[in-house]
Amino acid sequence: MTLALDTPAILAELTAMSDRYERALADNDIAELDALFHDGSEVVRYGATECLYGADEIAAFRRARTGGAPPRENTRRAITAIGPDLGCVNIEFRRLADGRTGRQSQTWWRGPSGWRVIAAHVSLMP
Amino acid sequence: MTLALDTPAILAELTAMSDRYERALADNDIAELDALFHDGSEVVRYGATECLYGADEIAAFRRARTGGAPPRENTRRAITAIGPDLGCVNIEFRRLADGRTGRQSQTWWRGPSGWRVIAAHVSLMP
Repeated sequence: MTLALDTPAILAELTAMSDRYERALADNDIAELDALFHDGSEVVRYGATECLYGADEIAAFRRARTGGAPPRENTRRAITAIGPDLGCVNIEFRRLADGRTGRQSQTWWRGPSGWRVIAAHVSLMP
Repeated sequence: MTLALDTPAILAELTAMSDRYERALADNDIAELDALFHDGSEVVRYGATECLYGADEIAAFRRARTGGAPPRENTRRAITAIGPDLGCVNIEFRRLADGRTGRQSQTWWRGPSGWRVIAAHVSLMP
């Protein structure tokens, strides 16, 4: 049977997880950010200036980034639920300091410990 | 039950789909590129310079892009299979003309018509 798209209950769960992630990002809550990413070698995070493979590289990057992510406002968010245990969250944002715009894409899956990001890509518009 | 990661048979399917997509991209085979993306409003494609929502916007963009995607070589590829019907393909590439490097992330799902990209994000490194 094909995975159903955009089941309302799953969309609600993904929305709550995205809200939680955005709060942790704004607060530079490193423990929470770590906890919301998959803890394994399979996770990939392409950041605005870096390519990170595996939970260890991602955790090390967070600890090296003074002050956390540049403050931003999110201007658009599109969430797609794919079956009961996977979803994509795509966000457009604008950085408050310099007005530069960018995008953040995340793929979430429901693993043994709950919803976690297993792939992410952040980039700034040229 | 949790979705199993990286089942070999599913990894092989995703690898074949990624190879097929890369061939279509190199050949600017628009019919094939259209066919490999989800045909619905749920698909998102963030490109190097554009944010596209839904199959119609993506199809229109392809037809407006003279000559297709800039030729590139892929320098790294990481594929993660999530259960039997989902996967992430992350690629680092270098453009042949100017040497600029970038990343391409795709989330694939097995829909009613087979494997399709339902979210994609392409960006160049600054």
